Amino acid sequence: MINKIDAKKHLIELGNHTESSFLTLLREEFSESKKVIIVDENTNDECLPALLTHYEELKDTEVMLLPCGEENKVMEVCFQVWEALTEYGIGRNDLIINLGGGVITDMGGFIASIYKRGVSFINFPTTLLAMVDASVGGKTGIDLGPFKNQLGVFSFPKLVVIDPLFLSTLNEEELLWGKAEMLKHGLINSKVHWDSIKNKAVKEIDTYDIAASITIKNNIVLSDPNENDERKKLNFGHTVGHAIEGYYLNEGKIPHGLAVAQGMIVEAKLSNNLKLLSDEAFSEIHFILTEHYPKLELEDDMIKEIVDLMKNDKKNKGERINFTLLTGIGEATINHYPTLIEITEALAFLKNT
Amino acid sequence: MINKIDAKKHLIELGNHTESSFLTLLREEFSESKKVIIVDENTNDECLPALLTHYEELKDTEVMLLPCGEENKVMEVCFQVWEALTEYGIGRNDLIINLGGGVITDMGGFIASIYKRGVSFINFPTTLLAMVDASVGGKTGIDLGPFKNQLGVFSFPKLVVIDPLFLSTLNEEELLWGKAEMLKHGLINSKVHWDSIKNKAVKEIDTYDIAASITIKNNIVLSDPNENDERKKLNFGHTVGHAIEGYYLNEGKIPHGLAVAQGMIVEAKLSNNLKLLSDEAFSEIHFILTEHYPKLELEDDMIKEIVDLMKNDKKNKGERINFTLLTGIGEATINHYPTLIEITEALAFLKNT
Repeated sequence: MINKIDAKKHLIELGNHTESSFLTLLREEFSESKKVIIVDENTNDECLPALLTHYEELKDTEVMLLPCGEENKVMEVCFQVWEALTEYGIGRNDLIINLGGGVITDMGGFIASIYKRGVSFINFPTTLLAMVDASVGGKTGIDLGPFKNQLGVFSFPKLVVIDPLFLSTLNEEELLWGKAEMLKHGLINSKVHWDSIKNKAVKEIDTYDIAASITIKNNIVLSDPNENDERKKLNFGHTVGHAIEGYYLNEGKIPHGLAVAQGMIVEAKLSNNLKLLSDEAFSEIHFILTEHYPKLELEDDMIKEIVDLMKNDKKNKGERINFTLLTGIGEATINHYPTLIEITEALAFLKNT
Repeated sequence: MINKIDAKKHLIELGNHTESSFLTLLREEFSESKKVIIVDENTNDECLPALLTHYEELKDTEVMLLPCGEENKVMEVCFQVWEALTEYGIGRNDLIINLGGGVITDMGGFIASIYKRGVSFINFPTTLLAMVDASVGGKTGIDLGPFKNQLGVFSFPKLVVIDPLFLSTLNEEELLWGKAEMLKHGLINSKVHWDSIKNKAVKEIDTYDIAASITIKNNIVLSDPNENDERKKLNFGHTVGHAIEGYYLNEGKIPHGLAVAQGMIVEAKLSNNLKLLSDEAFSEIHFILTEHYPKLELEDDMIKEIVDLMKNDKKNKGERINFTLLTGIGEATINHYPTLIEITEALAFLKNT
């Protein structure tokens, strides 16, 4: 059975890809189009055969294999893809299919949106993180040095197909990084969602949980597509999380989900220090996150560098660093600008505990 | 007096910049924003002082000087600007001001639209070509190798200020390249506009002519923002023109307006060969264009390469090359797919005459 989520600007479908609208699109709108599938080394081996063997419409498809990992979500790689697309003679009416985790869907969406001022694309997210986070909201982008998603556009895929089949190719750690974004959706919007997944082993996360998580994000995005207010709630954990991730890009990278888990601890602590979040709620958040996620050890000089990176966050206004904070489990509040001292103190919590 | 053209997604203002909405934007919406002005070597000397001395709101503005010329409308230059914007701490609420010809407004608009998924920008086109062409329609972009505007997005400036003051910094040739696009607006949409400018010396082109030309383009763009049909008319002369320009990017570049003038001759000839355009109308078009514009000499091997470049035109469908042709002076017809032989024959007209 296919579960359809109406994201207004595009359709998100959960379930077996063979029952999704993908086949109809291939046979109708894109029947005469050239197709390109963008994969990484993992999805080339683990996921691509499932598509190529099932759809004979894909038999002449060009496959573009990109290197794995956030450190390759950069302009140099895009540039090589654009040159190849030009060589293949891909035109505005052709189709790009992104098959992979967040790096592939973010970067592939960006590549498609910029090429000839926009070619249609379809996303098949293959990691839990990409399914619950990157699949909704039309954010595409690449990194610039240590700055995450510094270059990008808002642009919507024709279709997103979320097939839990692909989750079976992931190990427990990779599922854990995706669960971090699901926990975030609970923290900012739904205590019910938080409670239903907080103690669940990642292997038990099912289509129902994924649909619930996506629905939360989708509703927030639809209520404020341009990120003027409500949508900023989705940034909880990410002001600190992106800076930690950026810091580690130089030092041997860490997974996005792990950085966000640490970011949520720090930003929950900041909420608590600022008397927005009760001690009790903070304790529960802290307990759940530290129980499941490995601890990062921050040194003093790292904290300084991480604060410096935050100063370039996209959400800032002038010199002030913008935070989304919590007032409870399931309740977020936007546009807080704590002092550098308050931010540093909250970060130091990762050091001292 | 300021002449305002409502372009729906942005405002175009013709007249003295001191009377435009620019000052109000600086004082209100962007009063707390950092500002960056992007210029090239010419506008840095000839145009920038007029702005800096007049607006004290610009006193802390960063000026970014880019190299002149189409051969610099490339990703490498954008990349350097993005790194500088990051270094200056430019955020999503800040403002980029593009002061220059089409290269600066196309590339500056692209740079602003991609940076942090979109920063506001204001365009001050300083060449006749940029005023009548690049100022309307939201096309931003850069070149990829010999392919013009292969990378880009549709994105609208906050405001376009067209001040004829800047035209006084141009020589006769530069005005002539802009007039080519004005003649195109006449050919595809208005015999009146064609007749009123066809014999005019470029130094006599006035604000009224410019406003008329922009209005034609603006009406077409508004009737079909996504270039599904009507807007394709604006591509007249450009399928061949872009390919000629791309060819010469390798060989010592030629101005866009000159390439478009040649493209219009070839595409009018093609219209005539296909019995769409009368001999009489073709003769007039040919006479006016060859009277004013220097002739390019095409060799046989050049023609082959130019046809190859056309195969990668953004408007194509599959392998077929899409043309906008003429059925009369002031009347265009879209979505023609002539054979390679027909295209080559029309191109050969530049060789034989």
